[in-house]
Amino acid sequence: MSRSRLRVEWRASVSLVGTVLRYLSVPLAFPLAVALVYQRDVLVFVATIVLVVGLGFALEGLDPDPDLGPREGFLMVALTWLAVALVGTIPYLVAGDGTVAQPVNALFESMSGFTTTGATVMGDISFDTHSRAIMMWRQLTQWLGGMGIVVLAVAILPELSVGGAQLMDAEAPGPGIEKLTPRIAETARVLWLAYVGITALEVVLLYGLNVAGMAPNMTFYNAVAHGLTTMPTGGFSPEADSIGAFSAAVQWVVVPFMVVAGTNFALVWRAVNGSPGRLARDTEFRAYLGVMGVVTALLAGLLFTNGATGLDVGAFVPGDVEEALRHATFQVVSLVTTTGYATSDFAGWSEASKYVLLFTMFVGGSGGSTGGAVKIIRWVVVVKAIRRELFTTVHPEAVSPVRLAGRVVDERAIRGIFAFTLLYFVLFFVGTVFVVVDAGRTGYSIDVLEAMSATASTLGNVGPGFGSLGPFGSYLEFSPVSKLFMVFLMWVGRLEVLPVLVLFTGAYWRS
Amino acid sequence: MSRSRLRVEWRASVSLVGTVLRYLSVPLAFPLAVALVYQRDVLVFVATIVLVVGLGFALEGLDPDPDLGPREGFLMVALTWLAVALVGTIPYLVAGDGTVAQPVNALFESMSGFTTTGATVMGDISFDTHSRAIMMWRQLTQWLGGMGIVVLAVAILPELSVGGAQLMDAEAPGPGIEKLTPRIAETARVLWLAYVGITALEVVLLYGLNVAGMAPNMTFYNAVAHGLTTMPTGGFSPEADSIGAFSAAVQWVVVPFMVVAGTNFALVWRAVNGSPGRLARDTEFRAYLGVMGVVTALLAGLLFTNGATGLDVGAFVPGDVEEALRHATFQVVSLVTTTGYATSDFAGWSEASKYVLLFTMFVGGSGGSTGGAVKIIRWVVVVKAIRRELFTTVHPEAVSPVRLAGRVVDERAIRGIFAFTLLYFVLFFVGTVFVVVDAGRTGYSIDVLEAMSATASTLGNVGPGFGSLGPFGSYLEFSPVSKLFMVFLMWVGRLEVLPVLVLFTGAYWRS
Ligand SMILES: [K+]
Ligand SMILES: [K+]
Repeated sequence: MSRSRLRVEWRASVSLVGTVLRYLSVPLAFPLAVALVYQRDVLVFVATIVLVVGLGFALEGLDPDPDLGPREGFLMVALTWLAVALVGTIPYLVAGDGTVAQPVNALFESMSGFTTTGATVMGDISFDTHSRAIMMWRQLTQWLGGMGIVVLAVAILPELSVGGAQLMDAEAPGPGIEKLTPRIAETARVLWLAYVGITALEVVLLYGLNVAGMAPNMTFYNAVAHGLTTMPTGGFSPEADSIGAFSAAVQWVVVPFMVVAGTNFALVWRAVNGSPGRLARDTEFRAYLGVMGVVTALLAGLLFTNGATGLDVGAFVPGDVEEALRHATFQVVSLVTTTGYATSDFAGWSEASKYVLLFTMFVGGSGGSTGGAVKIIRWVVVVKAIRRELFTTVHPEAVSPVRLAGRVVDERAIRGIFAFTLLYFVLFFVGTVFVVVDAGRTGYSIDVLEAMSATASTLGNVGPGFGSLGPFGSYLEFSPVSKLFMVFLMWVGRLEVLPVLVLFTGAYWRS
Repeated sequence: MSRSRLRVEWRASVSLVGTVLRYLSVPLAFPLAVALVYQRDVLVFVATIVLVVGLGFALEGLDPDPDLGPREGFLMVALTWLAVALVGTIPYLVAGDGTVAQPVNALFESMSGFTTTGATVMGDISFDTHSRAIMMWRQLTQWLGGMGIVVLAVAILPELSVGGAQLMDAEAPGPGIEKLTPRIAETARVLWLAYVGITALEVVLLYGLNVAGMAPNMTFYNAVAHGLTTMPTGGFSPEADSIGAFSAAVQWVVVPFMVVAGTNFALVWRAVNGSPGRLARDTEFRAYLGVMGVVTALLAGLLFTNGATGLDVGAFVPGDVEEALRHATFQVVSLVTTTGYATSDFAGWSEASKYVLLFTMFVGGSGGSTGGAVKIIRWVVVVKAIRRELFTTVHPEAVSPVRLAGRVVDERAIRGIFAFTLLYFVLFFVGTVFVVVDAGRTGYSIDVLEAMSATASTLGNVGPGFGSLGPFGSYLEFSPVSKLFMVFLMWVGRLEVLPVLVLFTGAYWRS
């Protein structure tokens, strides 16, 4: 294929990726500061900043005056997540501590961070093995990835009309997202402020519990760490026992922040700015709360009846109302929003409970949030479109548009959502088989349910799975081939599948 | 709900179901004749005929002059398969032999027959336990079910425009199906003749192999039995070892008949009547052969490399070209067409081979054939529609219709196909969980892969699964609850999902 036939200005895309990398040096100052405070891994972050800035400038040199069309936009978005994931391995590799010093593991951990997945291959999550600065970098990758997703979902994807993404804001009555503020840059700035503000609020509340004597181990470091990984529905915790390491008060406080993190950010912004009533009228938000409520009730019933004994973390006996309700609420909210925190080792819960949790991994957060998976708004449209299909089966002559909040949903958006959801299931199915076969090849003992959880969890950017990849386990034992495959799933899943797959078509590059 | 508000003339539907039941007495004369010849179970079939005729007349009395609209058509179709499945249990129950004397098992076996699924709960498939007449009834239920499906798919569903079924014949260039002959009744008669003719040809060829000394155990009874269960892609065999009980020559002869059984019947009819070239030009037929060819090559490679040792039936060693090719071809054709015969105990093949086979269970035969599952034509449209979606992601302004054989496919048909395929996957997923959880509840040891095969195989009307429900095993060990659930899956799957689900909506009954 000769260069002249390409119809994509890939240099422009790569140049802008360079700009993103160069700006990455600014947040890198934060783990550097942590390294200076604790006097460990200082040079690691100095080296990383130098490399990132150098690489950024080099890439920018490819096209000093980049001009992006929609096509270059797709390429830039896909390459950005790939590039930051690659660059994000530098601290792990230079520090050289633990399992993430190995390149494939470093890439897995870094992609898991920037895609806000939270699946880990760290064999030992402790400050003995890893410095506080490295762990803060791990948390920070999620927070940065989440910010990128909010900007992408709210300000960029709707402009590109990607597979139903234009719907994301169809629900907000009144002015559309483009009227939130007149320009994309302004919208992004507003959302960035909200994102920072809510993160700060959580840090303050969590540390406040410590000051009030209700959470002895919620140090300031821990408060910041969990603040940074809640809003992006990330789920990385510097504690090996995740939120299970903390008091019940902490667990209850984290729940509403996860709920907010899974809510359409434009809706949150409007609700905070004087229109809280919109929340109650929003179809997607109601479906979101409804699903979480119903599944929580079901799971709380199962946990109340069976309890969860014999676990290292979050064990409880049958009949304890508060424990059953807390763990059910926390786990359902954590998995529906695709945060991935845990308060109890649900990989050791009953079979029935695990299937309930497997289902919740497909729900996903709201459109325009940092949540992953299929997303509530798509499920709402799929259910309505299937009901419409049943209706027109009986009334073939009827013209029966699908409506959301009284507005007719464009048929192209419905098509896009069907295509997305079907592709998602096909990827899940094929991915599960890939993982099982590869595990069989390498002698890693894993059953099909565990493989299903691995695929659903990485593709949906959820984080933990079942079995040895449970919430207090890791993905370490998978082969490098499986790990690279999951890196691909996290990347594809995070970017809404279609915009990445399109890069693999000839029509994208030449037509 | 008061009767007066119902908008469906259910009496008309039930009356016509009565007519179908009454006519069922005619083919019942065949197992009666077998019973007379072998002097066993004669009274069983006399009693069945009396009951069926009586019940038929009683139901017809509900509405002596039934008049069917489309809505009554749906109800009649769904009720017919339910009614014949219920009535079909009578011989098993009255004969009282073996495991199928138990009501739930009898219903499972009967529904499996009439839906041409071929999943069995017979604990002992032998003429010691069951009379030749009862076994012939079992084969005959599949042949009758297959005839019903051909008439339904080719002559009735397209009239009702069900979820993409109108597409079924979009592929045949030249005159549409309605021009095959001017009237539905005439079309049905023509297809019935073809169905009978091809069945007879297979019986003659199979018995011919016996006469020629190439198949000592292919008795005339066996030739008829397998003739009756190939064309409906049924898969019931009176031999416990299925086609594995016969010589390689028999196995090779059965393959092309399964291929024909999975081909659009209108296309077969046209090909036989002087237009064989149409086969080569038909997109669906080419995709059908292409998929079978590629998967066979893959599986033959796996079998050639690994062999399949230690099996009771169809064991072979690595490196045997003919064995690897024959078992790969037979099994892929058997599962893609959803026939379900076996020549080797594939439940004992390597893990990789089983996953390949699991995938083939989703492909399905052609539209307008007796094959089940998703069906090739829907996959062709799904793949084209997803490619269109990728294309319009890059070119949002483009108007890009999906074409089949040069003709634009109606967007409503595409919607219907998307809805069907997604519902199919959701049913598969939910069904698998149901089966696993219910097996756990009753202490039946089954892994998730086996449960997936059970759901895919019953929903897709394939027949065998893996593990204890392998091709030479049975579904006997499932709990009654799981069995009734699978009866539902076979019924829903056979009738293309949407026409059955629509009966569970309020809009069907009242709007
Ligand atoms: K996550
Ligand atoms: K079958």
